[in-house]
Amino acid sequence: MSSPPEAPTTSIATHAAEDVWVRGRSLCKDLIGRVSFTEMTYFHVTGRMPTPAQTAVVDACLVTLMEHGLTPSAIAARLVYSSAPDAMQGAVAAGILGVGSAFVGTVEGCAVLLVRIASAEAPFEGEARRVAQEHHAARRPIPGFGHPVHKPDDPRSARLMEVVERNGIAGRHIAALRALATSVDEVYGKHVTINATGAVAAALGDAGLPAQIMRGFAILSRCAGLVGHVHEEQRKPAMRALWAAAERAVPYEPEAGEE
Amino acid sequence: MSSPPEAPTTSIATHAAEDVWVRGRSLCKDLIGRVSFTEMTYFHVTGRMPTPAQTAVVDACLVTLMEHGLTPSAIAARLVYSSAPDAMQGAVAAGILGVGSAFVGTVEGCAVLLVRIASAEAPFEGEARRVAQEHHAARRPIPGFGHPVHKPDDPRSARLMEVVERNGIAGRHIAALRALATSVDEVYGKHVTINATGAVAAALGDAGLPAQIMRGFAILSRCAGLVGHVHEEQRKPAMRALWAAAERAVPYEPEAGEE
Amino acid sequence: MSSPPEAPTTSIATHAAEDVWVRGRSLCKDLIGRVSFTEMTYFHVTGRMPTPAQTAVVDACLVTLMEHGLTPSAIAARLVYSSAPDAMQGAVAAGILGVGSAFVGTVEGCAVLLVRIASAEAPFEGEARRVAQEHHAARRPIPGFGHPVHKPDDPRSARLMEVVERNGIAGRHIAALRALATSVDEVYGKHVTINATGAVAAALGDAGLPAQIMRGFAILSRCAGLVGHVHEEQRKPAMRALWAAAERAVPYEPEAGEE
Amino acid sequence: MSSPPEAPTTSIATHAAEDVWVRGRSLCKDLIGRVSFTEMTYFHVTGRMPTPAQTAVVDACLVTLMEHGLTPSAIAARLVYSSAPDAMQGAVAAGILGVGSAFVGTVEGCAVLLVRIASAEAPFEGEARRVAQEHHAARRPIPGFGHPVHKPDDPRSARLMEVVERNGIAGRHIAALRALATSVDEVYGKHVTINATGAVAAALGDAGLPAQIMRGFAILSRCAGLVGHVHEEQRKPAMRALWAAAERAVPYEPEAGEE
Repeated sequence: MSSPPEAPTTSIATHAAEDVWVRGRSLCKDLIGRVSFTEMTYFHVTGRMPTPAQTAVVDACLVTLMEHGLTPSAIAARLVYSSAPDAMQGAVAAGILGVGSAFVGTVEGCAVLLVRIASAEAPFEGEARRVAQEHHAARRPIPGFGHPVHKPDDPRSARLMEVVERNGIAGRHIAALRALATSVDEVYGKHVTINATGAVAAALGDAGLPAQIMRGFAILSRCAGLVGHVHEEQRKPAMRALWAAAERAVPYEPEAGEE
Repeated sequence: MSSPPEAPTTSIATHAAEDVWVRGRSLCKDLIGRVSFTEMTYFHVTGRMPTPAQTAVVDACLVTLMEHGLTPSAIAARLVYSSAPDAMQGAVAAGILGVGSAFVGTVEGCAVLLVRIASAEAPFEGEARRVAQEHHAARRPIPGFGHPVHKPDDPRSARLMEVVERNGIAGRHIAALRALATSVDEVYGKHVTINATGAVAAALGDAGLPAQIMRGFAILSRCAGLVGHVHEEQRKPAMRALWAAAERAVPYEPEAGEE
Repeated sequence: MSSPPEAPTTSIATHAAEDVWVRGRSLCKDLIGRVSFTEMTYFHVTGRMPTPAQTAVVDACLVTLMEHGLTPSAIAARLVYSSAPDAMQGAVAAGILGVGSAFVGTVEGCAVLLVRIASAEAPFEGEARRVAQEHHAARRPIPGFGHPVHKPDDPRSARLMEVVERNGIAGRHIAALRALATSVDEVYGKHVTINATGAVAAALGDAGLPAQIMRGFAILSRCAGLVGHVHEEQRKPAMRALWAAAERAVPYEPEAGEE
Repeated sequence: MSSPPEAPTTSIATHAAEDVWVRGRSLCKDLIGRVSFTEMTYFHVTGRMPTPAQTAVVDACLVTLMEHGLTPSAIAARLVYSSAPDAMQGAVAAGILGVGSAFVGTVEGCAVLLVRIASAEAPFEGEARRVAQEHHAARRPIPGFGHPVHKPDDPRSARLMEVVERNGIAGRHIAALRALATSVDEVYGKHVTINATGAVAAALGDAGLPAQIMRGFAILSRCAGLVGHVHEEQRKPAMRALWAAAERAVPYEPEAGEE
C-alpha cells in the first residue's frame, strides 16, 4: 500500500516514553533478547520476520562477504582511521564507499539477471543463454562470474549453495544461477566460475530479499569486516607501512607531454 | 604479541585459490553455514569465537541500537540516496557519519567510565561517586545517562540488562553501571535514567568486547538500520517532503550584522 | 604518454626536505602567492596552467554551483555535523555524497552529450536533433535542461554564457549547447530552459576541461558551500529544528500489507 | 544577532524563479563573473566580502595545502574511485574523511593556540611560553610545529608568511606564531619548524577567518587535490599496484595468542 509522494509516511519506527516500536512490534517486549541481529535486520528491511531457514541462509551470505583481507576498501578504512582516530565512523564510511559497482556491488548486477531469468517461463535455459550471449557479444563481464584468484572454482560459491540446499529453500534464483552457469561455459567456450557475489545474489533471492536492496546486505557484511580492520589498526597500526609502500609502488615521474 | 610498527602484519585474512582463511580458520569449511553473522563479527574483531551467552548479549545490543526512527543519521542517508540512487553505499556512508560523539558514539564514552570504575577495587561505589561528582562539577553530561523522550526510564536499558542477567554473564561492567547509576541519582539530586547506550556499553563489556571498538558495534547496528531506511526510500520516497519541510522549518533571513 | 598499468607512476607531486614539486613546478617558488586557488586547481588537475580567460570562466562556474540554500546535500551535512561536531570532515563528506547523478552530477551527463554533438561535423544541428529525439523517445530527461523553480529560464545560465562570451573563449561546447537548446524546444514542443548545470558543462568544456572530471569541479564548488553551512550550523544550530520537521513531515504509519 | 534555537533561520541563500540570493546579494548580478571562487567562498562563509589582500592570503593558504603527493587521503580516494568509478563523489568523500585531527586538521589545533596567545596582553611572549611549557610537560606535540621530512624548516611556512607580510595584513596571529616558535625552540632545547598547517593557521587568522571553521578551508583545499588524484586515476589507474603493494607490505600472520 504505497502512499502518494506528496504525503509520504514511514512504517519503520516510532517511539514514546515507554517503548520504541519497529514496524509495529515492541522493541523491548518482542525484539530485544528474542531475535538475532540477522533476524532483526531482515525484519527491519522487509517487514517480514524470516523463517529459520531464511535466517540461516542470510547469515551464511553475510559471513561469506565479510572479509577478503587487505582489499582496497579495507586499506582505505585503515588509512582514514589513522588520519582521524577520534572519528571511527569516518574510517568505516570510507571503506563502505569502496563497496561499489566494481566489487561487492556486483551482487546487485547478478541479482537483476537472475530475476530476469527466473521471471521467464521455466525451463530457464533459453533466457539464460540469451543473457550469456548478450554479455559475450558486448564483451562485458557477467556480474557474479569469474574470479582472478579463485580458479577454476570459487570455493565459497559451492559452499553457499550447499547451505541453501540443506536449508530447503533453494528455488528459482538458484535454478536460474545454475542455468546461467551452464550457458556461460558454453557461450564463452571455457569454464568460468560462479563467484561469491553470484552465489550470494541467488541465495539472498531464494531467501526472499529483493534485488534492489541486496547491495545493502553486502555493505552491512563489509561494515563488520571494516570494524575488524579498524580494531587491528588500533592494536597494530599499518598505516605508515601502507603509505610508504604506496609511495614506492607509484613513483613520481613528471609527464613530458603535459608540462 | 604485537609486531613492531616497522613490519606490521595482519592476522585477519589471507586467501588462495582453494579457500579464504579468516583468523586462521577456513572460511568455507569452518565458518560459512556454521556460525551466525554476529558470531562471525565477534570472532573477526577479537580473534575469539563467542560463547552462546556472549552471542545472545551482542545480538541483543545490536538489535537495541538499530533503529530509532527518522533520526538525523537516517534523514541524511535518505536525502543522499535520492540524490545519488545509483550509489547506495554513499547513502549508507552518509548515515554512518552521523554515528558520532553526540549520539550513539556515547557508547564508547560510557564504556571508558565503566572500565575505570570496574578497574577500581570493589565495591565500586567510591569510584562511581567520583565519576558522578567530576561530571556534575564540570557541568558535563555523563555519557550513557539521560534521555529526552524515555523518561523516567529508558525501557531498552532495563530489558537489555535483563538479557545479560538471564544469560549469566552479568559481571564487572554491569555492576559498575549500577553503582554509577546510584551515584548519579545521589549527586544530581534527581533520577537520571541509564539510557540505551549506557546499557549497551555495560552489556558489550561483560560480553568481552573492549571499550576501544564498541563504537564499531554501534556503527554496525545502525548500518543495518540505514539499509532499511534506504529500502523504504526506494519504495516510498520521502526526500521531496523532507527537503520542503527543511526549507519551511529554517527560513531565509539575511543577517543585519554581517552584511 | 600513458604508463602501462603494471608500473603506474604519478605525475602529481613529490617532496624533499627543501620543497614540494607539483607537476614539475616548485610549490614554494612558483605557486604559493603567485597563482589563485582556481588556477592551482586547474593546473593540478590538467597539468596546464590556465589562461586568464579560462580562469575567469572556471571561477564563474564554481561561483554558480556553490550554493542553492537548504538542499538535500546541505541538510545532510548540517545533520551530520551536529551529530559529530568534533569531525567536521565527516559533515562535509556526507554533503558531498549528495552531489550525485540526480543533482549537480548532471554536469557530467550534459558534458558527454555536448562532446558528442561537438564531435560531429559542424553545423551541429543534426546531431543535436538526434540527441533531443533519442531522449524524448525514451522519455528520459536531458541532463542540463529543465528546472522546477527557475522558469521559464534559469537566470544563472544566461549570465554564465555571457561570461564565457565576454572572455572570448566561447567555442564548440557553447555552440553545441545552443544547438541542443534549439532542438529541445522543437522536439518537446515547448520551451525547456538550459539549467545551471548545462551552462556549466558547456563553459567548463570551452575552458578546456574534459567531461570526465567535470563532476569533480561540481563537487569542489559544493564543498565550499558545505563549509559555509557547517559554519552557520556552528553559530545558529538548525539540527533540532530539521529533525523535528522531518518527523512531522513523514509520520509513522505501520503498513498493513507487510505485517 | 543569533536566533533562538527554537526558530532558527538561515542567512545563506534563497531562490525564486528569477534569481538566487546568497547572503543578500544577487548571484546572477553581483557574484557570477564578478568574484573569484576564493572571494565567493570567503563571502559565503563569513558574510563579508574579503579585501584583495585577504583574498591573496586565503588563495596562498589554499594553494599551500592542496597537495603533498600520495598521502593516506589521496590513496584512499584512488582506491575507492576504482572500486566505484560511477560515483566520483564517493572517492572524494573518502579522501576528505582523512583530513582529520592527525593530519591537516592540525590547522585548527594551532589556530586555537594562536587565538589564546593573541588574546593575552601584548607582548605575547609570556602566554606563548606557557603554551610551549604545557605541551612539553604533557609530552604532547604542538599542533602546527614539526615535520618528518621538511627539516630543519618547512619551506612552505616561510613562503606563506612572506605572502602575508607582502600583502600588509600580518597582525596578531602571525605575531603570536612567531612568539610561539621562539618559545618552542627554547623550551624544547632544539629547533622545531613551524610547519605548513601552523603557518596556514596564522595566515587565515590574520585574513579574518575564525579558528572554528579553518579545518573547513583545509578540507576545501584537499578536495581540489583529491579531484586531481581522481583524474589521474582515470587516466593512469594505480589501484591494482597500490593493492598489491599493500598486501606485500602487510603480510598475513595468524596471531598465536588470540586463536
